[in-house]
Amino acid sequence: MIKRSISFALALVLCVGLSFGQNNPKYIFYLIGDGMGLNQVHAAEVFLASQQQKNTTVPMVFSTFPVASHATSHSLSHGVTDSGAGGTALAVGFKTKNGVIGMDSAGVKSYKSIAYMAKEKGMKVGITTSVSIDHATPASFYANQKDRNMYYEIGQDIIKSNFDFFGGSGFLKPETNAKKETVAPLYPQLEKAGYTLLYGMKDFNQVKKGQNKLILMNDKGTPASSLKFAIDQKQGDMNLANITEAAIKTLSQGKQGFFLMVEGGKIDWACHANDGASAIHEVLDFNKAVEKAYEFYKKHPKETLIIVTADHETGGLGVGNGGSTLRLGQIASQKISQEELSAKINELRKNSPNATWEDVKNLISTETGLWTKVKADEAEIKAAYEKSFINHQNETSKSLYATIDKIASLSINALNKASSLSWASGSHSAAYIPIFAIGVGAEKFSHKMDNVDIPRTVAEIAGWKFDELTY
Amino acid sequence: MIKRSISFALALVLCVGLSFGQNNPKYIFYLIGDGMGLNQVHAAEVFLASQQQKNTTVPMVFSTFPVASHATSHSLSHGVTDSGAGGTALAVGFKTKNGVIGMDSAGVKSYKSIAYMAKEKGMKVGITTSVSIDHATPASFYANQKDRNMYYEIGQDIIKSNFDFFGGSGFLKPETNAKKETVAPLYPQLEKAGYTLLYGMKDFNQVKKGQNKLILMNDKGTPASSLKFAIDQKQGDMNLANITEAAIKTLSQGKQGFFLMVEGGKIDWACHANDGASAIHEVLDFNKAVEKAYEFYKKHPKETLIIVTADHETGGLGVGNGGSTLRLGQIASQKISQEELSAKINELRKNSPNATWEDVKNLISTETGLWTKVKADEAEIKAAYEKSFINHQNETSKSLYATIDKIASLSINALNKASSLSWASGSHSAAYIPIFAIGVGAEKFSHKMDNVDIPRTVAEIAGWKFDELTY
Repeated sequence: MIKRSISFALALVLCVGLSFGQNNPKYIFYLIGDGMGLNQVHAAEVFLASQQQKNTTVPMVFSTFPVASHATSHSLSHGVTDSGAGGTALAVGFKTKNGVIGMDSAGVKSYKSIAYMAKEKGMKVGITTSVSIDHATPASFYANQKDRNMYYEIGQDIIKSNFDFFGGSGFLKPETNAKKETVAPLYPQLEKAGYTLLYGMKDFNQVKKGQNKLILMNDKGTPASSLKFAIDQKQGDMNLANITEAAIKTLSQGKQGFFLMVEGGKIDWACHANDGASAIHEVLDFNKAVEKAYEFYKKHPKETLIIVTADHETGGLGVGNGGSTLRLGQIASQKISQEELSAKINELRKNSPNATWEDVKNLISTETGLWTKVKADEAEIKAAYEKSFINHQNETSKSLYATIDKIASLSINALNKASSLSWASGSHSAAYIPIFAIGVGAEKFSHKMDNVDIPRTVAEIAGWKFDELTY
Repeated sequence: MIKRSISFALALVLCVGLSFGQNNPKYIFYLIGDGMGLNQVHAAEVFLASQQQKNTTVPMVFSTFPVASHATSHSLSHGVTDSGAGGTALAVGFKTKNGVIGMDSAGVKSYKSIAYMAKEKGMKVGITTSVSIDHATPASFYANQKDRNMYYEIGQDIIKSNFDFFGGSGFLKPETNAKKETVAPLYPQLEKAGYTLLYGMKDFNQVKKGQNKLILMNDKGTPASSLKFAIDQKQGDMNLANITEAAIKTLSQGKQGFFLMVEGGKIDWACHANDGASAIHEVLDFNKAVEKAYEFYKKHPKETLIIVTADHETGGLGVGNGGSTLRLGQIASQKISQEELSAKINELRKNSPNATWEDVKNLISTETGLWTKVKADEAEIKAAYEKSFINHQNETSKSLYATIDKIASLSINALNKASSLSWASGSHSAAYIPIFAIGVGAEKFSHKMDNVDIPRTVAEIAGWKFDELTY
């Protein structure tokens, strides 16, 4: 009887182990599409299917995960969050005022992010992005500053983090502090703290095995503000999947496990500009980074947790703007970002001030397919050409991250409209953020959540005590 | 050793029983918000919070369910589904051409809905809606017709269904067939088939216990096309929660269990009209119907499954149209639907042809809060007044289910814009449909699905063999 009881208990323990008591995950991927609402994911899925002449969808790797849910994203101060409060909520599990990084609304108390918790437990930590390393979302995981624009001070917080890997385009203000004073350059401070600065994948590929504390940035001489838009990238340009792969390679050395945050930062930028094709290519680019995580998961399925989410939606994107036929496939004819199109128009204006409407129209057609492949009215765009090229009154549209020639923005607007996409504004919206999860503990994300519940649940699954802590 | 093995096996069986092998659900609720995308749910949640001066959200009962996921909704013919193909997908688990009810695209083969499967297994079946019983969504569960507009023929399919309870506003074409011929009235045919026709809750309350095969409709003399918009309902008007309660009361007699479909049909209508306040009140009204199901669930948690979903999104609704502050609370000042406002303006035009702009402005302010509680530009609306009242050139805006006076539609547009809502069009969009689930087998809905997977999963959980069948 005793034996039977022991045996029974043993089986129950085994059973509980199978059902609930999985080990804490040794490897945690936390991937954030900045500005990636559900419709951004959906647009990319419909776009892929349209390239096969189908009216269905082709899923992202993450939308095939066994858990797909959604969360609210309002900040403490606003119904619509910014990336500071949004990133902070996802990093530290507390809501704060828009614009704040890892602190309370008053900018007094610092919160501890789940990246720090991982580090305290002996895991390696990586923070990566397709924009600058000091930008709001990555910053929320390692910095504590009362204003997201304090880029220099945010960059300095890397030192206290002692995290193992940083990857992104670079740093925005490595020599200018919040008071706009020129101060001691950031890079030597980072090097003094033991970090090796790497410029591009060539540098990374020369890193010796076991070398730790790396900061991977864009090639020297290229912009530090962000990677190129995926739609504009050429063979050999460093992309988010490259950075993710480099991070995994670095962090998976040794046996201590890791926490890796990956941000697809320019989905947001493309959506601020209401540039549908660029936004879709950014989602596809982000998906490639998720694929790297998923490949790792497949090798370590019982030790890995992958969360894919977003900080907020940007632009109020809609898929379908009247009628039952989606024409999203047409957007494939856009070959460069709105920003690049604007640059090309500016260049033409500079180099050929007498360019005719046909010249400009040809340029737009070549780069966007308008009028050659996609039907659209030309009157408004032609009027903007005349105002600009003939009457020399240049007009621009300003989005959060770019100032765009009016001819370019009208052209991209026309293409988006013809391609069944709609935009509510050039700002963030309050739409739910998506959550996709696979691996150890993923089932805990199956219900509708609030953004702060996401890192709290990660901590719970990892067995970390989630608490409000100051440094 | 054998004993130990038996004991071990016993424990494992117990364990598997606990984890997976729950009984099939005896009670299945399948609630469909027509046109209820994720943003429609979210708008209602933000609206409720705004009434408490909070920038957070107050959840619907269904958004607190342990499973919240989403699904694609494209039809076989189009990227954007209509309610025929959408309802069919949710009812029979097969995609078809837009406009078809429960059949293949050619209109040749009839599919069997999960309601019929439930009936075959001896369960009672109820089909309810806030619009007419012969409308596309409810029809998809009991009818098989090649065109959703074949209202008379759809109504006749009630007879073959032999289902136990139907509830809604009535029937659209009880005496006119698809060829537009006047034919034998539907109602006597239904009565001959054993159905008792009930007009309003008063009739229902006189039904004797055990009396089965009921069809509950609007009070005689009120429109058969739909219940009133929730925002326009007065004390005593029959609402969707009343119908749901009546259905539960009828179907829960006896021990055979039941399948109940409930459609919130006018979320879609309000969204086609881009009438945000009415749409939000429809979601809240639908939520009250879900509450009835949830109350039942709480009494029978181990025997009940509730699924809440939608056939498609309508309007491309966005929450947040620029800026970080949501002003959705302002929409509370709208007291009647756009349709009612239009009727009141038409009435004023008829009764007071010399009405001044101040008269019209007062009417609009009283009913919508524009200018008194909500800041908005009046120029465009005043111009429409002048065109209509002074120059006698009435203009209307036509949405799928209503023709609205231009003054009314411009007023509601202005209020929506001021209240942080955006609309992409007056048509359906391709946005994901939400899924919320609780109860027996709910965890099987935790991943991203396609709409046809939803009834297939219900069938799987219920233990029904899902197969393509003709009658």
